[in-house]
Amino acid sequence: MYLNAIGAYLPEAVVDNQYFEELNNLTDEWIVSRTGIRERRKAAPHENTQTMGIAAVQEALPRLPYGVEEVDLIVGATYTPHDTIVTLGHAIQHSIDVHDIPVVTISAACSSLVNAVEIVQGYFALGKATKALVVASEHNTAYNVETDEKAGHLWGDGACALFISKERQTDSDIHIVDVLTGGAATRGKATESVTLKPLAKGIIMPNGRDVFIHACQYMPKATIDIMERNRLNMDDIDYVIPHQANLRITNNVAETLRLPAHKAVSNVEYLGNTGCAGCGIGLWEKKEKLQKGQRLIITVFGGGYSYGAMLLEV
Amino acid sequence: MYLNAIGAYLPEAVVDNQYFEELNNLTDEWIVSRTGIRERRKAAPHENTQTMGIAAVQEALPRLPYGVEEVDLIVGATYTPHDTIVTLGHAIQHSIDVHDIPVVTISAACSSLVNAVEIVQGYFALGKATKALVVASEHNTAYNVETDEKAGHLWGDGACALFISKERQTDSDIHIVDVLTGGAATRGKATESVTLKPLAKGIIMPNGRDVFIHACQYMPKATIDIMERNRLNMDDIDYVIPHQANLRITNNVAETLRLPAHKAVSNVEYLGNTGCAGCGIGLWEKKEKLQKGQRLIITVFGGGYSYGAMLLEV
Repeated sequence: MYLNAIGAYLPEAVVDNQYFEELNNLTDEWIVSRTGIRERRKAAPHENTQTMGIAAVQEALPRLPYGVEEVDLIVGATYTPHDTIVTLGHAIQHSIDVHDIPVVTISAACSSLVNAVEIVQGYFALGKATKALVVASEHNTAYNVETDEKAGHLWGDGACALFISKERQTDSDIHIVDVLTGGAATRGKATESVTLKPLAKGIIMPNGRDVFIHACQYMPKATIDIMERNRLNMDDIDYVIPHQANLRITNNVAETLRLPAHKAVSNVEYLGNTGCAGCGIGLWEKKEKLQKGQRLIITVFGGGYSYGAMLLEV
Repeated sequence: MYLNAIGAYLPEAVVDNQYFEELNNLTDEWIVSRTGIRERRKAAPHENTQTMGIAAVQEALPRLPYGVEEVDLIVGATYTPHDTIVTLGHAIQHSIDVHDIPVVTISAACSSLVNAVEIVQGYFALGKATKALVVASEHNTAYNVETDEKAGHLWGDGACALFISKERQTDSDIHIVDVLTGGAATRGKATESVTLKPLAKGIIMPNGRDVFIHACQYMPKATIDIMERNRLNMDDIDYVIPHQANLRITNNVAETLRLPAHKAVSNVEYLGNTGCAGCGIGLWEKKEKLQKGQRLIITVFGGGYSYGAMLLEV
């Protein structure tokens, strides 16, 4: 599989730590030392999961090396749904106006982007699609409980769009060499550590410590698994983009992997936890600086629990 | 692909039309003439999308010809999520206690069951799974606005579980010969005819007529498409199980297909619209009466819009 173009959308409004100091008596120093987060983006009242996903697609279109009408599969990825019937994927289909192609929207919490790419890989293997559009979009602030002192300050909004083809389209395509995913709902306090019950509205994280432990265990494990099955080691990898949950988790993952700090991509400092969109946004930010032959691993962990990894080669 | 076992769960509580007569001044005669629905099931307060899905899996287990620990892929299907982080699929993984297998939950509204089976087909093609568990579960009454005179009386709760293997397991397996899906979000009033915005809670159906027209168009179309590409015609098909939305839609689909009434499977009369679980429950009800060599087509339509069909051979 080949990544032909990548787009992103970040809402304009910036929420700094001062806001949470006033709301919850949490100082900037306290938030930064525990999470690395200095600010995050917040969708405007007229925006939602669907509009941000559509904006991310539009942002990518000028760099798409073929017409958008060639897209023959859409997979939306989100755990912050605006609408579960006219899903993110269906809103994207409507916006790009491509008829009668498979469309679906998925969730495996914060690991959904990698799950979506693996579903695309399946459609390519079946010969049922050749050019897919994966859109990850999270409207965390719609479900966030800002006054929650434990987790209210963590979340940000954002979206990314990945155009993926079965065959190489141009020399500047990024090769998606391998993808793996796994559910880990049998581990630890998986079924109660992070929950988003739409009817109760809020994202709740009563067992942050259990999430931290499993994220710090599974993201290195997935990274090592995907390196081993591709006969690579850490020296062969130029960048790792872990799920953007918390800078302490990213640092811990890097330490476990003995990854030099400059090889760990991070945007959580200025975007907060943008859910399953965070890694894709990280790749979008990095893309122009990548050089031919460089390798990246995206490694993710979701609150349900779930994990995944993708090996990319420029 | 082969269907090895199928389970279902229906909550105990029955809600008859008398209930809606008292609530909304709709007579039994009025509801039956427009929808065919006489009663529907309603989950108990301690039940939800996840518990019903787990119960459907449990119901199937005594008939599963292998140990549940052999399951190596789980796909949940629902548009009525209890939790979008610990998703239906993850709750199922936790309940059957199988570690480190791909798990995801999807929505393409009422067509999700067929989309889920197509995703399984992709994992089988990749060699990433050989025994999948698809669970479709809808807790419509959690999101329903009972006082909505247009649509409040339509919805019921229920779940089904399909164990699917890549290779035949027993002589009584049902062969899943072919699967197709399509998004139709570019057609008619797709993005506004049926919506479920979790933050607004309710399932809203402001354009029932547009849904009716497209459902009556796409379900026959998907049925004909899957017959044609398998060189079959209506005489070769023993049963069609359309999406269980409304008896008038089912009758219209049968008429368009020139399908004799007794070949159209229906449970909407006593279950209401059970969303993406309805067809699977219909298959579960029919399974014991099926004879070797018989063929069935499941054809679905979702409110986003989306459609799909599956060809089965006993």
